[in-house]
Amino acid sequence: MTRTTGIRFGTAYYWEYLRAPDLARDLDLMVQAKIDTIRVGESVWSTWEPRDGEFDLEWLTPVLDGAHERGIGVVLGTPTYAIPPWLQRKHPELAVARADGSRVPWGARQEVDFTAPAFLRHAERVIRAVVGRHGGHPAVAGVQLDNEPGLHLIHNEPVFERFTAWLAGRYGDPARLNEEWGLTYWSHRIGDWNELWRPHGNTTPSYDLAWRRFQADLTTEFIAWQAALVRELVPPDLVLTTCLAYQRSALDDVRLSEHLTVTSGNAYYLPQDALIHDAEDTPAEISWFSAEPSQLLQAADRMYASKGARYWVTETNATSIAGSQLNLPPYDGQLRQAAWALVARGAEMISYWHWHTLHYGAETYWGGILGHSMTPGRVYDEVARLGAELDRAGDDLTGLTPDADVAFLYSHESKWALTFQPPLTLDGRGPDKDAYERIVTAFYRGACEAGMQAAFVPPERFTPYPVVVAPALYCMSAELADVLAAYVRDGGHLVLTFLSGYADEEARARAEVAPGPLRELAGVRYLEYSTLPRPVPLRGFGTRDVARHWADALEPEGAEPLAHYDHHHFGRWPAITRNRVGEGSVTYVGTLPGRELTAELFRRIAPERDRLVTADAPQVTVRSAVNGQGERLWFAHNWSDRESTVTLAAAATEVTGSREPLPPGPLRLAPFDVRVVK
Amino acid sequence: MTRTTGIRFGTAYYWEYLRAPDLARDLDLMVQAKIDTIRVGESVWSTWEPRDGEFDLEWLTPVLDGAHERGIGVVLGTPTYAIPPWLQRKHPELAVARADGSRVPWGARQEVDFTAPAFLRHAERVIRAVVGRHGGHPAVAGVQLDNEPGLHLIHNEPVFERFTAWLAGRYGDPARLNEEWGLTYWSHRIGDWNELWRPHGNTTPSYDLAWRRFQADLTTEFIAWQAALVRELVPPDLVLTTCLAYQRSALDDVRLSEHLTVTSGNAYYLPQDALIHDAEDTPAEISWFSAEPSQLLQAADRMYASKGARYWVTETNATSIAGSQLNLPPYDGQLRQAAWALVARGAEMISYWHWHTLHYGAETYWGGILGHSMTPGRVYDEVARLGAELDRAGDDLTGLTPDADVAFLYSHESKWALTFQPPLTLDGRGPDKDAYERIVTAFYRGACEAGMQAAFVPPERFTPYPVVVAPALYCMSAELADVLAAYVRDGGHLVLTFLSGYADEEARARAEVAPGPLRELAGVRYLEYSTLPRPVPLRGFGTRDVARHWADALEPEGAEPLAHYDHHHFGRWPAITRNRVGEGSVTYVGTLPGRELTAELFRRIAPERDRLVTADAPQVTVRSAVNGQGERLWFAHNWSDRESTVTLAAAATEVTGSREPLPPGPLRLAPFDVRVVK
Amino acid sequence: MTRTTGIRFGTAYYWEYLRAPDLARDLDLMVQAKIDTIRVGESVWSTWEPRDGEFDLEWLTPVLDGAHERGIGVVLGTPTYAIPPWLQRKHPELAVARADGSRVPWGARQEVDFTAPAFLRHAERVIRAVVGRHGGHPAVAGVQLDNEPGLHLIHNEPVFERFTAWLAGRYGDPARLNEEWGLTYWSHRIGDWNELWRPHGNTTPSYDLAWRRFQADLTTEFIAWQAALVRELVPPDLVLTTCLAYQRSALDDVRLSEHLTVTSGNAYYLPQDALIHDAEDTPAEISWFSAEPSQLLQAADRMYASKGARYWVTETNATSIAGSQLNLPPYDGQLRQAAWALVARGAEMISYWHWHTLHYGAETYWGGILGHSMTPGRVYDEVARLGAELDRAGDDLTGLTPDADVAFLYSHESKWALTFQPPLTLDGRGPDKDAYERIVTAFYRGACEAGMQAAFVPPERFTPYPVVVAPALYCMSAELADVLAAYVRDGGHLVLTFLSGYADEEARARAEVAPGPLRELAGVRYLEYSTLPRPVPLRGFGTRDVARHWADALEPEGAEPLAHYDHHHFGRWPAITRNRVGEGSVTYVGTLPGRELTAELFRRIAPERDRLVTADAPQVTVRSAVNGQGERLWFAHNWSDRESTVTLAAAATEVTGSREPLPPGPLRLAPFDVRVVK
Repeated sequence: MTRTTGIRFGTAYYWEYLRAPDLARDLDLMVQAKIDTIRVGESVWSTWEPRDGEFDLEWLTPVLDGAHERGIGVVLGTPTYAIPPWLQRKHPELAVARADGSRVPWGARQEVDFTAPAFLRHAERVIRAVVGRHGGHPAVAGVQLDNEPGLHLIHNEPVFERFTAWLAGRYGDPARLNEEWGLTYWSHRIGDWNELWRPHGNTTPSYDLAWRRFQADLTTEFIAWQAALVRELVPPDLVLTTCLAYQRSALDDVRLSEHLTVTSGNAYYLPQDALIHDAEDTPAEISWFSAEPSQLLQAADRMYASKGARYWVTETNATSIAGSQLNLPPYDGQLRQAAWALVARGAEMISYWHWHTLHYGAETYWGGILGHSMTPGRVYDEVARLGAELDRAGDDLTGLTPDADVAFLYSHESKWALTFQPPLTLDGRGPDKDAYERIVTAFYRGACEAGMQAAFVPPERFTPYPVVVAPALYCMSAELADVLAAYVRDGGHLVLTFLSGYADEEARARAEVAPGPLRELAGVRYLEYSTLPRPVPLRGFGTRDVARHWADALEPEGAEPLAHYDHHHFGRWPAITRNRVGEGSVTYVGTLPGRELTAELFRRIAPERDRLVTADAPQVTVRSAVNGQGERLWFAHNWSDRESTVTLAAAATEVTGSREPLPPGPLRLAPFDVRVVK
Repeated sequence: MTRTTGIRFGTAYYWEYLRAPDLARDLDLMVQAKIDTIRVGESVWSTWEPRDGEFDLEWLTPVLDGAHERGIGVVLGTPTYAIPPWLQRKHPELAVARADGSRVPWGARQEVDFTAPAFLRHAERVIRAVVGRHGGHPAVAGVQLDNEPGLHLIHNEPVFERFTAWLAGRYGDPARLNEEWGLTYWSHRIGDWNELWRPHGNTTPSYDLAWRRFQADLTTEFIAWQAALVRELVPPDLVLTTCLAYQRSALDDVRLSEHLTVTSGNAYYLPQDALIHDAEDTPAEISWFSAEPSQLLQAADRMYASKGARYWVTETNATSIAGSQLNLPPYDGQLRQAAWALVARGAEMISYWHWHTLHYGAETYWGGILGHSMTPGRVYDEVARLGAELDRAGDDLTGLTPDADVAFLYSHESKWALTFQPPLTLDGRGPDKDAYERIVTAFYRGACEAGMQAAFVPPERFTPYPVVVAPALYCMSAELADVLAAYVRDGGHLVLTFLSGYADEEARARAEVAPGPLRELAGVRYLEYSTLPRPVPLRGFGTRDVARHWADALEPEGAEPLAHYDHHHFGRWPAITRNRVGEGSVTYVGTLPGRELTAELFRRIAPERDRLVTADAPQVTVRSAVNGQGERLWFAHNWSDRESTVTLAAAATEVTGSREPLPPGPLRLAPFDVRVVK
Repeated sequence: MTRTTGIRFGTAYYWEYLRAPDLARDLDLMVQAKIDTIRVGESVWSTWEPRDGEFDLEWLTPVLDGAHERGIGVVLGTPTYAIPPWLQRKHPELAVARADGSRVPWGARQEVDFTAPAFLRHAERVIRAVVGRHGGHPAVAGVQLDNEPGLHLIHNEPVFERFTAWLAGRYGDPARLNEEWGLTYWSHRIGDWNELWRPHGNTTPSYDLAWRRFQADLTTEFIAWQAALVRELVPPDLVLTTCLAYQRSALDDVRLSEHLTVTSGNAYYLPQDALIHDAEDTPAEISWFSAEPSQLLQAADRMYASKGARYWVTETNATSIAGSQLNLPPYDGQLRQAAWALVARGAEMISYWHWHTLHYGAETYWGGILGHSMTPGRVYDEVARLGAELDRAGDDLTGLTPDADVAFLYSHESKWALTFQPPLTLDGRGPDKDAYERIVTAFYRGACEAGMQAAFVPPERFTPYPVVVAPALYCMSAELADVLAAYVRDGGHLVLTFLSGYADEEARARAEVAPGPLRELAGVRYLEYSTLPRPVPLRGFGTRDVARHWADALEPEGAEPLAHYDHHHFGRWPAITRNRVGEGSVTYVGTLPGRELTAELFRRIAPERDRLVTADAPQVTVRSAVNGQGERLWFAHNWSDRESTVTLAAAATEVTGSREPLPPGPLRLAPFDVRVVK
């Protein structure tokens, strides 16, 4: 069941990994920390089924019983992401083939082609055994289907054959494919489907896009298959979910989440100094973790977007994340900051990974709430204090819907296409495969620093927020362009960037004057563009900042120039324009502007809002959300080691504190503090 | 036929790549831009022969007819560098094997072992079909044989067997090979040819040199085979050529060009700021494109050297080159600068790659004269202006032979040997596989900055230019040393550097006191040498500069020291010496001197010349060439964004301008300007 | 026989590599340089046995005879590390398989699985032939068994099968392995030995440690097998040794040396500026060569530790080492400095690699005593001067035992475990696989700069030196902890660092409060630790310096804090503590302190010693050793290009000089000088 009041506070609990476990002590410590949910069992197929067809299902029973006795709910995982040694030995052909034909070696997890019949047969059997045995236990609140799916692009030959069939279904006959993908080029025309080359040496963008789409579909189908299977085995009110790692290669979180009751995801971040706001205009680090405060909010907003609904954070930092060489326990207060930020942006559960640091295995230095010593220390105390605070906040947090005044159109297709043909360099020369994410992140940060709250929206779920940003929306349909035009005419404020609309759904550059279907709407055209190997100063727009990486040669056709390049060659073209259309406007940004200018750009189009709480300094963020009782909560974070303040526009009640009334005026935020008021 | 007046102005034209082509419009736009040559058809075997043995030859006819109607000549390509999918499926064994045995995956082009009988059989059939059908069309001016050959070192097993046979032919018996290659070392002696190891793990320098020589021969043989085949099929006056990418691994441009009517090559360069002269003493970037003005001249001189004759530039920048992350349209004027530089150095054709930017495929961001929008813009206008200017210059450009007062002996063998055993580091530790090219480029730039004009000369075509440079001529025969000695005695000025003559034709270090056969000539010896991990200051020689990378411990035996190291250890040895021999001199440079010192070194030995045009600033280059009527043309480039001047020693006529007489004295060059006078 | 007086002065001599050898001239030049030992024949199996079973054994006879005539001893190598082409062709399956299954290609040396029966059969035959023929020659002083063994981790399938059997022998049954290695994690439990996965994808630390241990054992077994075989063939007083490259992956020098008469090893170093002392606090470069003066001493002390006895330096720099791009002939005096440093630390032989630079092969630019020209030059002269000096020192050098007042516990297991799970980063993020070596090297340098002399000691040979350091002794047994406790109680001064004792012998993190078995002894505990991505200032301890890389959150339980972090978060914990226990003390260092602070830390616990010679400047080191007659010799090095001094506490005699008495007081050291007194 989904929780009906407050939020869940949880941890992954791997009792089976301990050599001298003390179940009662662990569960009692959890209760003391107000932990009410544990996640169990997803990694140990070889414990469930030590030999082919021989099951040992009872080891978990004491954990379920112990949890139930203490009112702790359990999320039970299907163990399919880590196959046992006997299965890899029985079916070596299951090993994932990489593009170059080499096999992913066994020894970690997620090494197998999960689409293979031999795998699915064994997976079904173990799921039926485990979930059949325990799915009805009263402690069980939900089932996690597999774990972090989509790690590899699977190049096994049968998968390639399915791809060919998938293409045949889409394109009908090879001549059509030749035409759509431009296979005349470099003599790539095929006469028969069996002439299609393998992805390894592929250089055709449309091919790559289809391959990525197909691979994401495989992941979705696999989770959908598990969901249907488990649904047969459990009470109907159980939550079915999986834990998503959003950076997975073969993942479309939106389509996959259609098959889940609730989206779940990882929200890892670099703590310590990385979680302190700084004003430097450095390029965003793109990784599987957030590396600055705005990226943590961004990750949360991405999770909300998967279903356009509240979500579970199945994994987030306890003491340390990642490899043995990078141990960064959060500073005092940072765990609390992160948790409240996620709650503010729609998290319905905060679950730590994991209860105790493991004594062996690949993740020996991935620190739990308890360290290797199993002794409660500073981090346990921080978690327990937070647990108490969340518990006190109680029903105020029920059904929280985060506010948003700007929507970012986020497109997997554009990301994949710009990974294959990266538009930016990292060092002035080499391609930046994360260019799409870097562009999105730069504009997200700008909006955040303008005080705006953002939602991510898949293009196919377009919603008319006051401001809509389509950053580098490279693969855009003409239909979406029409939708955007209508939105602007009706008063919307649209922000377009270089590359938006440049290509079509097949990742083909359009054979029209750019920006193609957006040209009239934006009131600009361009016939050329240039990489900027070095930053170029900008003039106009009030602030002095730089343009980076890219410059469209914008020729206004009705739009008003807002900023120009200060450069002997590029100076002839504006860098940013605005076009007024009907009630709305289109801001076209032909470059990647500096940090301050990006924020200023959003400040100018941010809608007026009544705000109970206003930030007084750049290191402070204020988020708001409306709870199930229709009350708006305000979350003020001080992402710094200095005192800061926010200003209350009216009297308020503190959700995180004494619940005594707060007068209007300045409200103090200690270093690393967060305060929640309503 | 070769053109008899003026120069050809052309573009690659891929009509077949367009989804909605407008042939007449394209050709008319070309005519307006004075484009008189197009290059067609070399990449589309799967269009010519969509199925094994089924040909479709008529798609090109409208292009040929349309070109002919407008007086545009056509270079027709054989399509052999990009095989069709059906052929790779029929003969998977054609895929190139890399050194490690892995196969080059299909999906780009040039993936096949072109020496394989199965390939050659199919290649012959398609060449006979295509050239047989169209080779006699009146529009056709020439045939391009394959394209940019020599991409891979081919490690397929039959090729290795041919290599063994090739060695047996050269060395007679294994004992001789053991002796010549020093195979006693590390137990490498073989008793039978079949004991020879594969190149993958090879560590023997002589082996590697033989392998590189052999691979280059394979490329030459392949093009020679096509030339002989096509010659049967076309009128005798047709030009047979191919497009050379000079950086190809398996290429000896000099030997290959013996089989061509005209050499053709790529002349790509980084435009924008890279084409602005700067005085920084940074190491040259070695790549497939020129990265500064002197490198563009160097590339041109390399092309002239292939046959020691005028050449075609089959490909040069239109709007952008290289990957999606690097879009650098030239600044206004830079296309014109590049074209005139190439013409000044013997280009008989300037042909852009390509007419229009492609909408799909690997080169989607390789910008054409028209962009994706197919709409003429700034770049088209620049091309058209240039076309008009070249057309006006007309017969003045006929038969231009570039002047040269310094010859660089350029040796593929030395390059290959120093790639295998690089003498320089990049970062103080790691080997620099481009060391040979970097040394050559540094000395070329010095000569250029001393106002000299250079020719590249293969050692086997030695010619007594006033100055001859043998930079790092590592693999040198004793016979060449004798030739150089005679040249110096007769008044020549020879410049030798570290490593010149150090090894013999088998890339063996000589067992004599260095520099071996050059010792007496140079009047110096050395028993040791040192890497210089950091630059060391030099004293003497008028200018203060640094020594980099290398220091020979030179002991003069008759030569006069010109510069010393300012260093507690190296200071005992001179860095540069000069030896007077007969009428001439030998300058021995035991290090890689800084930029300014290198130029000064050439200034001191540059021959006196009567110059109509003299540069007034370092950012200006002046080149000269003599046309078919015996007139000397002078080409003055201002490689900067500032105004500059040259000085006319006498009245002159402007070829690029109004053709009115110019008085002696200063002649203004606008930013990014070039002026041609006679 | 081992030499009984003085030390051996030698060179590797590869007469067989020369195309026009002059044996008598070479040997005479050696005699002039006082070279009394040559090392021969280890690389030329294909010369000894040009065809399968056909031997040519006489080519060496003139060398042996010539040497014997001149009183030069010979170390004869078995040629097994470089197999002949006919053998690799006969048994291609011998090629070493890498982790990924690819084969090490043939073409260098050490490409084969030396454990394979087919290899051993052929190896035995050639050893019997060569050593049988020449082992009794009166010139032969020793036999070198193979060369630099342990290059590869061998992944050939039969080796993996032996590994499984090795595990079965150790653990009995798979259930035990599951338990010990924690294979519940990620579903790795096996039900049968044949389910064990290959090392390629392994992520389990205990598995990796076993694999490394097993691979080192293979190397030891191979050398032991050769030793037993050769022992049958030679007179009983012959030295059996091999040349160790200490950085080899599959090497435990201590266990291997049990099978040798004398340890031999390489002592390569970067000369020129790297051998000049500088005070910069940069991280040590970890490579196969020493990169600063203290590293050369460290390498020497490591060699002594292999057997806890004097050793041979079979290879050290002559003119240059490493690749063609890095030629660094030593400055005047540096060869002498290096040799005396090695002698001071127990070297019984100094042998150069090699006599002459080779004219072909992979090591063409590895410079010998003679260069390619075979002409004596500066380096020969330096060697000859040194030879004369060593000869003069004569019996003073007999039986020198180096002094030491601090012992470093060096653990291969800890090194391997921290290679698999590196605790440090190089650049703030990426793992540093050399972390263990870097930590050891930092503390060694500190001890050196505090004027201490060090011994390396394997934990299983624990010896109570005045000070004992256990740097990052990660894999520590509880038994060793008890030994350390007893040592401290008895007055020892123990230095522990972060990670010491953190894991057990299976590389499992301990499930007790850290530092586990050392907690009581150290008087501190910690429940967490943090990476320090940037240096953090330290306060206290007299000197101001920084902490790097790591911070244990030390909570004193009796220990006294000595230094704290100056940091808002880490400031609550001490960085260094001292605990007084019985007569002794334990210094716990929870971070990697800066260079100066590390030295200061050692200064405070260094034992008082009567010193004849004291260094007056940081660029000077003083070492001491006691010779066979019980006299203590003092070696003073000036590692700089400036004059320096040491102070004599009493009158002394100069071993390196005139042997006239030196008065007490300052003794001058010229730049790059070394003086030895007694």
